[in-house]
This record gives sequence, structure tokens and C-alpha cells, in this order.
Amino acid sequence: MEPISFTEAFDSFDETWSPRLAAECNGQAVKLAKADGEFVWHSHESADELFLVHAGRLRIEFREAADAVLEAGEFTVVPRGTEHRPVAEPEAEIVLFEPSGTRNTGDVETDETAEVERLD
Amino acid sequence: MEPISFTEAFDSFDETWSPRLAAECNGQAVKLAKADGEFVWHSHESADELFLVHAGRLRIEFREAADAVLEAGEFTVVPRGTEHRPVAEPEAEIVLFEPSGTRNTGDVETDETAEVERLD
Repeated sequence: MEPISFTEAFDSFDETWSPRLAAECNGQAVKLAKADGEFVWHSHESADELFLVHAGRLRIEFREAADAVLEAGEFTVVPRGTEHRPVAEPEAEIVLFEPSGTRNTGDVETDETAEVERLD
Repeated sequence: MEPISFTEAFDSFDETWSPRLAAECNGQAVKLAKADGEFVWHSHESADELFLVHAGRLRIEFREAADAVLEAGEFTVVPRGTEHRPVAEPEAEIVLFEPSGTRNTGDVETDETAEVERLD
């Protein structure tokens, strides 16, 4: 039950679009990711996804709704089945809460599809 | 999918130890609470509980482990069944991630037992 500092955790890696598993809680994963530029359009069929911005700014684009623009200290929940594209402008540190095992690119497999590494 | 600002949300209420529901995600609730001083010893039989400190400092005491002292920007997960007592020194704004329906005082009912109100 050691405290985890978001700032220290983000300082421990550099890779972008490569989520780190920081903790698990009731079958949900707390993942940290560095974002840089545009990610791929995707959706998660059976997983809601919470995005919390720790630093920088993240725009989440939707096919049929206005963009959500998240500043540091802001979060939103993307409901399951909602196609979305995260875009960092230009960089952001983001925290994700989603079911353990959720793939970062959801229903698509691309060069950005990444295994989740456990945070050191 | 409107962004929710932790700072604005905490500014919208004053009551302590009275969690506000900010969002739900995969059956988990995101709750905001203002903490002030000692809470009651309790546990949640079937719910892990994530504590994230937004402002101030929160000490979580355990019966059989060292205290966890969380500063702003730090979090920890208290596993289900673990008796704990949150203590704010002297005040803290805390974010909880736990299953929807989790009672704030867990297995005990006290004056501090509170219904969760939805954030305005």
C-alpha cells in the first residue's frame, strides 16, 4: 500500500503511446501513458475508458460528438463502443482507468498496439 | 463526455466526509470527498478502494501495516477486507475509485455514514 506519485511514475519512462500498469483495483487497471500527437481511431467494445490528464493537454475526437479537450487535472469517461481518437497537443501525460486487459488500440491492431508493462 | 475539472468540482461543495459522485465507469464510481481530521475505522468486504489525493495530505492508518501518507498527486489502493482509517491532516481533497454502491463507512454504520450525492 505504498503511495504512488504520478509525477515520479511519469518521470520513470519516456516511451510514448506505451501504457504502464501502475496498479489494479477491482479488476480495473490504472495505466499511465505519455501521448504525443495523434493516436489511431478505435473503440473498446465492452470497456468504458476514463482519461485523466496529469500534464499537458489531450483532445479526444469522436465521430459523432464534439471533441473533448482535457487540460491537466481534468478527466472524462469514454463509454464502451464509442469510436474515439486521442490527440496530444503536442504532448501529454495521461492516466487511464479501464478493465485490466484492455488493449490500447481496442478493436484495431496497428503499429501502435502495445503490451502493457508493469511500472518499475 | 464533457471534461470534469477536479478543482472546479471540489470548489462546488464544502461538506466534509460526504462523497460526491463525479462519474461512473465499468461499474466503478469516481467520488470526490473533502476530508477533515479522523474518519472511522472500517473495511469493505468486497471492494478494493483507490485513494488519490488532489490537495492536502491524507494519512491512511492500518491495523497491521505502516501508515500510508499520501501527498497531492499520490494514490494508493487499499485491498478489500483491509481495515483502515483515513486521517486528513488537517484537510484534504480526495478522489475515490471504488465499486458503485460502496458505503463510505464500509462494514460499520456511524454518524459519518453518508449517502452519495451526484455532483451538480
